[in-house]
Amino acid sequence: MPEKKVVFMGDGSLQGAAAYLGGVLSHAGIDFSYVPSDQPAPLECLDRPSGLVILSDYPAKNLSGQAQETLAASVKKGASLMMIGGWESFYGLSGEYHRGPIAELLPVECREADDRVNWCQGVVPRVVKKHPCLEGLPWDEPPVFCGFNGTSLRQGAELVLSARLLRIRGENLSFLGEECPLLAFDSYGRGTTAALTTDLAPHWVGGWVDWGQQRINAQAPGGAEVEVGHLYAKFITQLVNFLLKA
Amino acid sequence: MPEKKVVFMGDGSLQGAAAYLGGVLSHAGIDFSYVPSDQPAPLECLDRPSGLVILSDYPAKNLSGQAQETLAASVKKGASLMMIGGWESFYGLSGEYHRGPIAELLPVECREADDRVNWCQGVVPRVVKKHPCLEGLPWDEPPVFCGFNGTSLRQGAELVLSARLLRIRGENLSFLGEECPLLAFDSYGRGTTAALTTDLAPHWVGGWVDWGQQRINAQAPGGAEVEVGHLYAKFITQLVNFLLKA
Repeated sequence: MPEKKVVFMGDGSLQGAAAYLGGVLSHAGIDFSYVPSDQPAPLECLDRPSGLVILSDYPAKNLSGQAQETLAASVKKGASLMMIGGWESFYGLSGEYHRGPIAELLPVECREADDRVNWCQGVVPRVVKKHPCLEGLPWDEPPVFCGFNGTSLRQGAELVLSARLLRIRGENLSFLGEECPLLAFDSYGRGTTAALTTDLAPHWVGGWVDWGQQRINAQAPGGAEVEVGHLYAKFITQLVNFLLKA
Repeated sequence: MPEKKVVFMGDGSLQGAAAYLGGVLSHAGIDFSYVPSDQPAPLECLDRPSGLVILSDYPAKNLSGQAQETLAASVKKGASLMMIGGWESFYGLSGEYHRGPIAELLPVECREADDRVNWCQGVVPRVVKKHPCLEGLPWDEPPVFCGFNGTSLRQGAELVLSARLLRIRGENLSFLGEECPLLAFDSYGRGTTAALTTDLAPHWVGGWVDWGQQRINAQAPGGAEVEVGHLYAKFITQLVNFLLKA
């Protein structure tokens, strides 16, 4: 069986939260191997000189030290790696990827404590720098999402989107001054790494999942059907395609 | 076995979305009977002269005509009924409670077509009228949620919260002028009815689930554990307690 270009690990199962990213990948015709959150990472999925590995709310305890070394070596050879936010991404709730081989190649530096920013008044993406994955999307009419992992940009990494916190006091709407990394890229050897610090599934995804007037029904093989906005799907597709070609 | 005061029906299962409302009820010490979305409503739960029945994303196909008549008769005798929003509440995606005995006693009138408002730029609650269930909560620092069922207020019903749509255009933040019913009450015979048109579970709940600085870990018997904001829990608890005493 030929190796699939994308390995998607985490987000529970394809019947659960993974139905979103899995559904969008399938809708875009991007074939992928899937590893549920409660299963250990198979080494053969991680040992690759190209393609893309996505870690999305995948518990670090299921990615052994050896597996993390193998994945880091693959990126060095030319594979791409993207980490997507969640309570089990970056540091997360109780400590996941803040230390070790994966931590060192991410475009952001993880905190050393619970990094979850559950922001009840909403968070808005802001374009910091033009990038192919952002093209053709109305970033001046952005969606609102609800949370992300707090990180700091690694020196030399490229920040593309930042997260701005909304502040609502009665009739007064404003943005808080401070911004946090939302989407960043870096290189590691011949490979490319990406960090998207919010989640693509509820609840952190918030209204982002409904971005775009057209509705898309998407379903991964063996997954639950999801209904999402077409701009949400377009953004994810462009992001994954960029990382596949990088 | 003495009848439980609250019957909570819907939101998938206690391992899924129902873990939120179920967890908050348990945290507040409010005992409840639970009916998962895929099980038909047992008539003995619906035939009661007091207490509260909550329908939250519970498919109307599992609440037969006879069951709906029984529930309506119970409200007439003095029970309370609350419908909480979702893709299978009010009209929902494909037609649920827009006709029949339940439709007639709700404080809002359902549309006759897909009523889902999936608003990607966020929705904010606004207090229209003081009410015991709103007390002690900072409504001038409200949470942002992501969607609701579009309805119109029934003549004579009491509108307590309305839903205001956020509009984001670059740096410009505003509210759209039109508001929709978010929380309304009405009476039917000796009973009280309530409609909360958003969902208390992801994804429509958005940032509302994180309202309040203190974090609460809550778990219904047999349910998944959830971590929520203390003001989210306080609001739900006050709403349910009002309907139990009404």
